[in-house]
Amino acid sequence: MTGAATNMRMKLPITCLILQIILIILFGTIVQYDDETDAKEWHEHLHNGSKDADNDFYYRYPSFQDVHVMIFIGFGFLMTFLQRYGFSSVGFNFLIAAFALQWATLMQGFFHGLHGGKIHIGVESMINADFCTGSVLISFGAVLGKTSPVQLLIMALFEVTLFAINEFILLTLLWAKDAGGSMTIHTFGAYFGLMVTRVLYRPNLEKSKHRNCSVYHSDLFAMIGTIYLWMFWPSFNSAITAHGDDQHRTAMNTYYSLAACTMSSYAFSSLTAHDGKLDMVHIQNAALAGGVAAGTAGEMMLTPFGSMIVGFLAGIISVLGYKYLSPILEEKLKIQDTCGVHNLHGMPGVLGAIVGAVTASLATPDVYGKGMEDVFPQIANGEFTASAQGARQAISLAVTLGMALLGGLLVGFILKLPMFGAPSDAICYEDSIYWEVSLRCLQTHIPQLPDPSYVQQVAHSHCSILYLMASLQAIFLCTGWQGEWAH
Amino acid sequence: MTGAATNMRMKLPITCLILQIILIILFGTIVQYDDETDAKEWHEHLHNGSKDADNDFYYRYPSFQDVHVMIFIGFGFLMTFLQRYGFSSVGFNFLIAAFALQWATLMQGFFHGLHGGKIHIGVESMINADFCTGSVLISFGAVLGKTSPVQLLIMALFEVTLFAINEFILLTLLWAKDAGGSMTIHTFGAYFGLMVTRVLYRPNLEKSKHRNCSVYHSDLFAMIGTIYLWMFWPSFNSAITAHGDDQHRTAMNTYYSLAACTMSSYAFSSLTAHDGKLDMVHIQNAALAGGVAAGTAGEMMLTPFGSMIVGFLAGIISVLGYKYLSPILEEKLKIQDTCGVHNLHGMPGVLGAIVGAVTASLATPDVYGKGMEDVFPQIANGEFTASAQGARQAISLAVTLGMALLGGLLVGFILKLPMFGAPSDAICYEDSIYWEVSLRCLQTHIPQLPDPSYVQQVAHSHCSILYLMASLQAIFLCTGWQGEWAH
Amino acid sequence: MTGAATNMRMKLPITCLILQIILIILFGTIVQYDDETDAKEWHEHLHNGSKDADNDFYYRYPSFQDVHVMIFIGFGFLMTFLQRYGFSSVGFNFLIAAFALQWATLMQGFFHGLHGGKIHIGVESMINADFCTGSVLISFGAVLGKTSPVQLLIMALFEVTLFAINEFILLTLLWAKDAGGSMTIHTFGAYFGLMVTRVLYRPNLEKSKHRNCSVYHSDLFAMIGTIYLWMFWPSFNSAITAHGDDQHRTAMNTYYSLAACTMSSYAFSSLTAHDGKLDMVHIQNAALAGGVAAGTAGEMMLTPFGSMIVGFLAGIISVLGYKYLSPILEEKLKIQDTCGVHNLHGMPGVLGAIVGAVTASLATPDVYGKGMEDVFPQIANGEFTASAQGARQAISLAVTLGMALLGGLLVGFILKLPMFGAPSDAICYEDSIYWEVSLRCLQTHIPQLPDPSYVQQVAHSHCSILYLMASLQAIFLCTGWQGEWAH
Repeated sequence: MTGAATNMRMKLPITCLILQIILIILFGTIVQYDDETDAKEWHEHLHNGSKDADNDFYYRYPSFQDVHVMIFIGFGFLMTFLQRYGFSSVGFNFLIAAFALQWATLMQGFFHGLHGGKIHIGVESMINADFCTGSVLISFGAVLGKTSPVQLLIMALFEVTLFAINEFILLTLLWAKDAGGSMTIHTFGAYFGLMVTRVLYRPNLEKSKHRNCSVYHSDLFAMIGTIYLWMFWPSFNSAITAHGDDQHRTAMNTYYSLAACTMSSYAFSSLTAHDGKLDMVHIQNAALAGGVAAGTAGEMMLTPFGSMIVGFLAGIISVLGYKYLSPILEEKLKIQDTCGVHNLHGMPGVLGAIVGAVTASLATPDVYGKGMEDVFPQIANGEFTASAQGARQAISLAVTLGMALLGGLLVGFILKLPMFGAPSDAICYEDSIYWEVSLRCLQTHIPQLPDPSYVQQVAHSHCSILYLMASLQAIFLCTGWQGEWAH
Repeated sequence: MTGAATNMRMKLPITCLILQIILIILFGTIVQYDDETDAKEWHEHLHNGSKDADNDFYYRYPSFQDVHVMIFIGFGFLMTFLQRYGFSSVGFNFLIAAFALQWATLMQGFFHGLHGGKIHIGVESMINADFCTGSVLISFGAVLGKTSPVQLLIMALFEVTLFAINEFILLTLLWAKDAGGSMTIHTFGAYFGLMVTRVLYRPNLEKSKHRNCSVYHSDLFAMIGTIYLWMFWPSFNSAITAHGDDQHRTAMNTYYSLAACTMSSYAFSSLTAHDGKLDMVHIQNAALAGGVAAGTAGEMMLTPFGSMIVGFLAGIISVLGYKYLSPILEEKLKIQDTCGVHNLHGMPGVLGAIVGAVTASLATPDVYGKGMEDVFPQIANGEFTASAQGARQAISLAVTLGMALLGGLLVGFILKLPMFGAPSDAICYEDSIYWEVSLRCLQTHIPQLPDPSYVQQVAHSHCSILYLMASLQAIFLCTGWQGEWAH
Repeated sequence: MTGAATNMRMKLPITCLILQIILIILFGTIVQYDDETDAKEWHEHLHNGSKDADNDFYYRYPSFQDVHVMIFIGFGFLMTFLQRYGFSSVGFNFLIAAFALQWATLMQGFFHGLHGGKIHIGVESMINADFCTGSVLISFGAVLGKTSPVQLLIMALFEVTLFAINEFILLTLLWAKDAGGSMTIHTFGAYFGLMVTRVLYRPNLEKSKHRNCSVYHSDLFAMIGTIYLWMFWPSFNSAITAHGDDQHRTAMNTYYSLAACTMSSYAFSSLTAHDGKLDMVHIQNAALAGGVAAGTAGEMMLTPFGSMIVGFLAGIISVLGYKYLSPILEEKLKIQDTCGVHNLHGMPGVLGAIVGAVTASLATPDVYGKGMEDVFPQIANGEFTASAQGARQAISLAVTLGMALLGGLLVGFILKLPMFGAPSDAICYEDSIYWEVSLRCLQTHIPQLPDPSYVQQVAHSHCSILYLMASLQAIFLCTGWQGEWAH
């Protein structure tokens, strides 16, 4: 079942080891503890009147852990909905995230965290590294089932780099605000991934269509991912906002945005089904759009009222996208978007960016008071007006879209190189190409085996519908024959 | 498989959209950020000497997230034990929780949080909204598998309202203490749900009996819910107690109560089985009773010793309830309690309320010192005696039982209205009524299909025992026939 | 299927109840709230200038909850990889953890926490109790599938006691540092368990070999455990380090160690497979070795660079252990290590201890500054030199190995006593011995049943490969016969 092309025996180990050794060398040469993780420096601060309780660890670490769960459990299990791709969904998510967070530490540090030629790191850089990783995992969702782990690592290598550049342009050059990453994380990750999958278009993908679907339990595993993403999104959007009211407000805005989004997702999932039945795809994905859409404006004085409107709209857009837009994108634009990231991260991300721009342009001292310094420092110190801030937010969206599409185009062509071991059209969405599927115990207690490749196909997805049908046919044959026999 | 009655095409969307639009309008008119989430107000506090670290976010948000996990993962997955009802268990839990927490914010705010006609919200109101939601989900457990999502939303609408009124009577009028909600959450939710399911009694429910059971993997999914509820119960009970020793003590008391409860649950589960085998139903549920029973007294000086005794008894009561009382309730009182909420939340809740009343009546300045002001302010300032506090706790239990039973009676009759699309007796505990069950990929690679409705029944629960038996019969038939053939 | 020997009807309840009653009595006589959980004492502190925010609850509780998740979800689900042992993996993990954490509170309190004859407890003692429990669960992994719950409780009883003694020798007598427990938790738990399983050697275990393997969904459940352990390991290693930079630094070092470990685990899993396919066993376990190996040195100035090297090596050692060493240990040394704890906890634990000794011996005031007082108080106050500290770390490893092996030997022989109801060689790795496996609904809608014991074997593991093969054979028989018929 595994051709020479997809054999990872050398490709994967060499890629992992080279990348990791480079990371270790770079960390050894240019990375240092920041003042809050360094024993000597922190105790200097204590000496100068700080208290241990002031250490950023206590402000940020609980949020970091929630984000961490979203990255590894949330994204990982959300993608296990495919009946035969659970190992790869969780496993490759795990691998590329473990690589991306290290690489992101370097790339983001290079652009934001240099102190005398050294990158200083602490919990905030860990959160930012996880954020950047999230962007890569969004792109992974677009190409899920159609790429080898080596391709994914190469994609992560380039995407993290471009992410850091885009983030630098937005936050440092344009002074845009995007604490929850509607633009930097979601819009960038989604359109980057969509362009990659466009370049990697597979005309004969329907050969694997029977595997590109869920079964009962795989949908339940996916719900684990969905619920964790949903629950911890308030922590995600508030993880790196300013201390105090900012973190508090951002978490609450996101909480209400998600709740409203869930209601509209269920409503439209049922409304758009001919028999009014809810579709797991919508529930697993659209109900999360409210978190994406509150990513930029969440820290602003959006109010729970505004947050609920944003979430409500995001849910509707997302369901309609899955129902009507995705098929068009696939047929007309040849974009094969496995997880529908355009509906969960793309459109809601753009919505979030627009909401952020509008909300920023409406900021007034009456509403923000002295809090303006935290949310919009440049407006507070008179460097530019609220409407100028809004304009910079809008420009940031355009820049992000450009970077994502160009970047995805470039990287897509790189990933086309045959050496990376992409699966053929007939064996996409299939774990057994890259994973040892446990049949060990088989040989031991069943002497004679049917054609192994067939058994493997069946066994490794013990809930395979194929197998279900086959068994039922057997039942009817035997029963039918019974009837014959009776006469 | 879906009759006109259960078709949600119009009912569900209209219900969700109307409710959500009403919520948005109400939030827009009467909800405001509180002093700790409002940029301007909080910076006034900072101006007056507060520090960002004093923001309640840092005292409450980690507890909030643990509670949030209990509500969405804990309750949601605990109910996935049914073999064909996993989508609905997690999915409807998700829907009604998303609605209930918004509605609860308004109802509880109306009774506790009004400031100049506006409801002020922050992390504490978010925790309280999740608490109220928990009560609705307990009632959901009693009617699980027998109600439509529309019925559940209507139930949530009324139950949240009654919850807020009952909470107001207990905490504001009676000055009772109930930080972990043994009374307000568990007793109320359980008896409310039991009365609702009594009113909705289905004489012919045994038609669906074959679906009202678990299979191997569905029990494992349920254990995810159980373990999360168990682990985070200390956070639940301590989430809104006073800062400092109170939160610390409450979490620790609950931790030991749960540990002791687990030991007695295992002991009695094995003891009450004819062959000494453990029953997953007991482990999944009874082991949690210790958290329920520590809900009221957890914040008091119960001591780990007292907590362990309470948990130990709660586990025993709960297992015995599942084993001996539930069948009686069903036969004699016609109460069809799907999840046995009476055993997990009802009786342990009452036990917790009694323990709380006794512990309160024993409170002395020797034991509490200045801490009395946090736990029993009225005793501290001499407004009334410890025994008076105990009496108020006892009265609160009676009030809660009355409110729950009357409320459940009322709401039960409302839910009987045919328009809400309840399933018929023959298709209870069945996902495929309300959910699109993925058979898409089927058609693609198996040309001829057996009777679809049968296939659907089987396929959507790929681990259906029915299907298992059928296959085995086929095997024996064929093998048997082989025997014949040999001669 | 259940013989008299394995019938738990009396054994399990009596064991649980006696142990719990003893625990309750001991807690009632010698356990007290510490100053931070006692209402009176804490308010004395407030009276003397402390603030509620200074309560250790706010420094430690979020870390505690992460550790708690690792113990109950992490360890519990990691062991569900066995196809027919999911109930026992999660369920017995739950039971022995609930017992061990109470017993550990007493044992550790007896050695560290006595104040005037009373054990004072708070969140730090809760974390330490969970740590000690982790050690027992590691040993559980070595004997998984081959022991009765009564044996496990007896093992926990003795192991916790020996753990506390060993911990006392290391931390109090030798003044060694081991915040994350590379020695006290992982090395001790692993070698203790390996010796126990050696003494309990089963020559005819291959009779159960067909059950000692995973199936598709059981591997996915196991990944839930893996990912949670991986994500929260930074909290584990930093949970009881000093406040401020120490907790912050430890978490960060562990984070990078784990990331590097994941990369090398994937690389070597693929490299050591003939066809380059990844092995779930390696991903589920080896990727965690980086957390184990950073347990001792994590709080020191290891630097992210050093942490990554340690994690990188740990992953390699662990994969090679699973691939080449485990089979040798089983054949030559007769050590039947079900979960391969030697590869995940044993060798990486020893590595971590060595890294800790080396790192300690290199500690200089230049690097640590005033932070030396937190990490190495004896070096800071000149009681002994860095190299002396290193020597003490090395001696601690030797002591731990000795205690673990001798303790395991002793306890192994105790567990051999027949009365504890161990399963026979032919029914290991089998839930249905100790658990009621739900067949209730069966009788209701399938009149005639095949041989129940066979059905039970099959049904309770609805994904049994045996059953899969049988069905396929049936299919081929029938189809073959069809061919005949055609002529």
